[in-house]
Amino acid sequence: MDNNFLLETPTAQELFHSEAENLPIIDYHCHLDPKMVAEDHKFRNLTELWLGGDHYKWRSMRTNGVDEKYITGDASDLEKFLKWAETVPYTMRNPHYHWTHMELRTAFGISKLLNPETAREIYEECNEKLQQPEFSARGLMMRYNVEIVCTTDDPTDSLKYHKITHDSGFRVKMLPTWRPDKAMALENHATYKAYIDKLSEVSDMSIESYHDLIDALQKRHDFFNEMGCRLSDHGINEFYAEDYNETEVNDIFQKAIHGKEVTNEEARKFKSSLMLDFARQDAASGWTQQFHYGPIRNNNTRMFHAIGPDTGYDSIGTPNTAINMARFLDKLDQERHLAQTILYTINPADNYMVATMIGNFQEGPNPGKIQFGSGWWFNDQKYGIEEQLNALSVLGLLSRFVGMLTDSRSFLSYPRHEYFRRILCNLIGSDIENGELPVEEMPRIRQMVQDISYYNAKKYFKF
Amino acid sequence: MDNNFLLETPTAQELFHSEAENLPIIDYHCHLDPKMVAEDHKFRNLTELWLGGDHYKWRSMRTNGVDEKYITGDASDLEKFLKWAETVPYTMRNPHYHWTHMELRTAFGISKLLNPETAREIYEECNEKLQQPEFSARGLMMRYNVEIVCTTDDPTDSLKYHKITHDSGFRVKMLPTWRPDKAMALENHATYKAYIDKLSEVSDMSIESYHDLIDALQKRHDFFNEMGCRLSDHGINEFYAEDYNETEVNDIFQKAIHGKEVTNEEARKFKSSLMLDFARQDAASGWTQQFHYGPIRNNNTRMFHAIGPDTGYDSIGTPNTAINMARFLDKLDQERHLAQTILYTINPADNYMVATMIGNFQEGPNPGKIQFGSGWWFNDQKYGIEEQLNALSVLGLLSRFVGMLTDSRSFLSYPRHEYFRRILCNLIGSDIENGELPVEEMPRIRQMVQDISYYNAKKYFKF
Amino acid sequence: MDNNFLLETPTAQELFHSEAENLPIIDYHCHLDPKMVAEDHKFRNLTELWLGGDHYKWRSMRTNGVDEKYITGDASDLEKFLKWAETVPYTMRNPHYHWTHMELRTAFGISKLLNPETAREIYEECNEKLQQPEFSARGLMMRYNVEIVCTTDDPTDSLKYHKITHDSGFRVKMLPTWRPDKAMALENHATYKAYIDKLSEVSDMSIESYHDLIDALQKRHDFFNEMGCRLSDHGINEFYAEDYNETEVNDIFQKAIHGKEVTNEEARKFKSSLMLDFARQDAASGWTQQFHYGPIRNNNTRMFHAIGPDTGYDSIGTPNTAINMARFLDKLDQERHLAQTILYTINPADNYMVATMIGNFQEGPNPGKIQFGSGWWFNDQKYGIEEQLNALSVLGLLSRFVGMLTDSRSFLSYPRHEYFRRILCNLIGSDIENGELPVEEMPRIRQMVQDISYYNAKKYFKF
Repeated sequence: MDNNFLLETPTAQELFHSEAENLPIIDYHCHLDPKMVAEDHKFRNLTELWLGGDHYKWRSMRTNGVDEKYITGDASDLEKFLKWAETVPYTMRNPHYHWTHMELRTAFGISKLLNPETAREIYEECNEKLQQPEFSARGLMMRYNVEIVCTTDDPTDSLKYHKITHDSGFRVKMLPTWRPDKAMALENHATYKAYIDKLSEVSDMSIESYHDLIDALQKRHDFFNEMGCRLSDHGINEFYAEDYNETEVNDIFQKAIHGKEVTNEEARKFKSSLMLDFARQDAASGWTQQFHYGPIRNNNTRMFHAIGPDTGYDSIGTPNTAINMARFLDKLDQERHLAQTILYTINPADNYMVATMIGNFQEGPNPGKIQFGSGWWFNDQKYGIEEQLNALSVLGLLSRFVGMLTDSRSFLSYPRHEYFRRILCNLIGSDIENGELPVEEMPRIRQMVQDISYYNAKKYFKF
Repeated sequence: MDNNFLLETPTAQELFHSEAENLPIIDYHCHLDPKMVAEDHKFRNLTELWLGGDHYKWRSMRTNGVDEKYITGDASDLEKFLKWAETVPYTMRNPHYHWTHMELRTAFGISKLLNPETAREIYEECNEKLQQPEFSARGLMMRYNVEIVCTTDDPTDSLKYHKITHDSGFRVKMLPTWRPDKAMALENHATYKAYIDKLSEVSDMSIESYHDLIDALQKRHDFFNEMGCRLSDHGINEFYAEDYNETEVNDIFQKAIHGKEVTNEEARKFKSSLMLDFARQDAASGWTQQFHYGPIRNNNTRMFHAIGPDTGYDSIGTPNTAINMARFLDKLDQERHLAQTILYTINPADNYMVATMIGNFQEGPNPGKIQFGSGWWFNDQKYGIEEQLNALSVLGLLSRFVGMLTDSRSFLSYPRHEYFRRILCNLIGSDIENGELPVEEMPRIRQMVQDISYYNAKKYFKF
Repeated sequence: MDNNFLLETPTAQELFHSEAENLPIIDYHCHLDPKMVAEDHKFRNLTELWLGGDHYKWRSMRTNGVDEKYITGDASDLEKFLKWAETVPYTMRNPHYHWTHMELRTAFGISKLLNPETAREIYEECNEKLQQPEFSARGLMMRYNVEIVCTTDDPTDSLKYHKITHDSGFRVKMLPTWRPDKAMALENHATYKAYIDKLSEVSDMSIESYHDLIDALQKRHDFFNEMGCRLSDHGINEFYAEDYNETEVNDIFQKAIHGKEVTNEEARKFKSSLMLDFARQDAASGWTQQFHYGPIRNNNTRMFHAIGPDTGYDSIGTPNTAINMARFLDKLDQERHLAQTILYTINPADNYMVATMIGNFQEGPNPGKIQFGSGWWFNDQKYGIEEQLNALSVLGLLSRFVGMLTDSRSFLSYPRHEYFRRILCNLIGSDIENGELPVEEMPRIRQMVQDISYYNAKKYFKF
């Protein structure tokens, strides 16, 4: 994992080091906690930084037979770290193994391998450094040459931490992203009413009808827009494209806010309507909409009750959603309300489907208006990234791709941009050496590498 | 993209140049316009030849942000060409980039790369050549050593252009293919009745019942057979294998021709019946039946209304059709009416399913009776071709494969056979150099390469 | 196919020869006939050994145009062998080609290639050797350094051949596996009643209710456990996870044993219940449960009537079963009855889904409690094995994988373990040479190779 890690040819090495390595990072989709940026959080130790909320690592530890006590339980930070260090050598061939050592090297300058023999030494060295100001939340962001991050925020969020951060003059731009998933989640009538109440409060209007709901969301949408938001994001199991009429949808909404159960069919109608209204708001504001589709979540009920959602019990689903995806995008296109769109699939078996779907709605003058999002979640590893890049390449225009994002909760995850750029340069470098791309076009190829690493995102999102 | 393009090992190079490169082309499935062959069409310029109907290129142009005016609109031929030339460098890693330059090299002897700087020069050089007789439709076919092409024709077609071509003594055999999709399309009751009327007229019999429909089709089938047709082809979303009885099917047909709407379930019953009857006719005539399944078409309603079907708005679907495919083939096998069959999937996620499905219906004495068709449409690129070849190799007998076809509307698409042969030789060459295929069997390996490139198709189709 | 076959780098070669090649074989899932082991069967010739029941080979022969007479018909053994020898060169790039020659080399010391020219010579040499005692069923097992085999047995089986083998002091342990598929197969009411009668007889109790059924199965389960069984296995089209209650399930059972037809919905309820009860019995006994899901079987009705099931007419299905799989495992986990589990998919399009599903139910202190099973059936070839290993690597912990099995009826199939180990060492060797795994951790990497080849299975199954 040296300087030429993942770069198998001289051309790949040269491309990466000249064109990609030093460009800033635009991390247009992540799950950082804005409060930690606003308050410039200091990490008490490597356990907090690495193992605090990273359910990817938790999964590996469980698979390795580690007791839950040392994962999310009451063991000490040191004990937890030692269990992770014990697990690391068992993650060989998993992206964790690479990420762990890239993070140690790029953040802490440590090139030792983590394993039970080196664990204590590395723990102490890192913890010592974490006391220094340049290892705070903001310090890490600056270390990695981050230019912009887009967090993920609920419409009811006050965005006060975004404001604080902005007002503080922090040179990394932190912008909110509009993620209204809770406004969709009407099947859970216990929490749905409370959510609508909260939305009513922050939007300072009563919400008695579906129409009111859209108005309240629009007010918040406007507020997010003022705060610099240029992206929405939707976590969905599948796409919804049922027929419905306004009366029906309002009736379903009434049931939901009055604590009545809605049927599966009703929920689908409601979501079909709401997704279109979300999309219209984004189109009107010139935002980009993102759809992350396909996971099945909270599969382990016992652990869900014990430690809640987002704890490492999600997996890849097999939704059969191509036709609804097409219908949804088509409806918006017909009424000329199709915003810039990024489609992310959790299941790589859909890569080819998505890579061709985007082609149905491209149009000038906006190059790459509809994007096939980078390898997401479980696909954010060497094979997954390569497969997404290859599918996009042969079925669309790689050159117009807006590239990588971390999708992460961690302030140490920026080396994933480096990982991605290395893989990208490696593919392109191999093609050149194989004669599949022409050396005569090196200047254009260099530009393409820079564009995918940085400039395409910069132009596309108009932050 | 030189002489050894895509040939990564000396063995691959030797195999390609000795065994594959110079064999004639049997293009057993394409969408050439027979009229252009009959009249030996001369192309007014490179725009007509390249951009006239090639919706693959149109998709790339739209993705690149080109305005529709320069794609299907009223811009001049030169303007359109310049927009395409501008797009070409953005297609790097897309098969367009390779095809474009292979076509320039093999048809026009141009080895310059197409980009905005070279665009005018290349345009002029090509246009000049296109004035010469050897660059006519027939000239191009002869240039590429084409032996046979099979066009795609509706049962109502008079095949007059096939006759003219045949009678003219043109040395390339142009045969029709029976594609009765419109006889299936009863859901569109507006056009269905008109189609049946036309069929009635050309078959010179009244069509009052489902039974009449089959008889009329049989008459046309006989006529196609006389005209040298040996293949049918069916573009279907999925396979149909519903239970039905004759009365039901006739009732549904009555509804359709009397302008009444048929339900989805009725349409499926009707199609289940008609597909079996199509298949029986093919079996009786000793033809080969082809099934191209799985796309979702005309996804962009706005553009469909503006410029019609087959304009670049189709994509890969995710039909779940394995069980129906099995039932359909099984029914035919049970009644001993299973013709030679080629199955093409639009979604490579089905490659393994299809590659094992064919094994269920193989039988002596006909080697490779049931075929897994070459990487189709979006899969007609390096990865797609390799994946189809590999799936077929490990799950069936590659050696019995009937190989490549263009599926194209263009007289310049024959280099795709070269592309395929290079990829084939590259895979086999690598296997030999890795010790996965034995050098002791070189004569048999050479024969296998020749067979897949040419001889298997020649024997299989019995033209 | 020499000493370094499939080992593309020096590191891969060194790893294989030092760490993997000489470890014993634990073949924890196969379909050997216990009688042949008990009686130390002698093979009359190579046709019996190779072509007696191997429907993989039959499929290849049919694809090659061989008449059924020479496959399952009344041709002589020599004639059948010659037809196979004729087919072998046509299997190049299919795993048969490698297996055939690995088997000739490792069992008979023959390094000639099989083809029509060498066929008779090879046939005679092998047949001569097969007369020698070390080429008996047991002789072959010892030759391949097999430590344990687990056969596949019906709950009604007396296991007498297991007892005879055990009592004979044969140094290879042959253990039964509990495969209660027939107890699930209530849709076939003709045979179901007879099966329940047989179960009633061997369990020495009357079976009048669903409750009795479970009790009878438990008695047999106890008996299997006494006989050393530590594994169950289930061949299923898909996972079942319907809601049901005990009364319903008993009513459905009553219908089935009284010769009444059950609806599809009823069958699903019954299977949902029975699969949970199977799983509870396995959990209580500390066994490992295996699920082989997804094929579509007996697709060729004509040949099914002629020669029965398991004759080469099965293929890969496309079940959409992720959600039911999750529900099934979750229910068991909730009641703390989730045994060690191995999930095998027939369709590699599900590889990523399964590789993430297992992560939802891992827990300490048992490393790799839930396993993604090795490339199964059609996936038991180079690409299939690599894809399973890669999916498991990037989404789980390869290091905890219990590795390969033959799933075979043949006493000559043990080289598939060698095949697997070569592929494993090749992947890991390439990673080391590419810098994706660190040479500093060579001792741990060596251990990982040994663990996956042998030690993980040894620890996991607790035979």
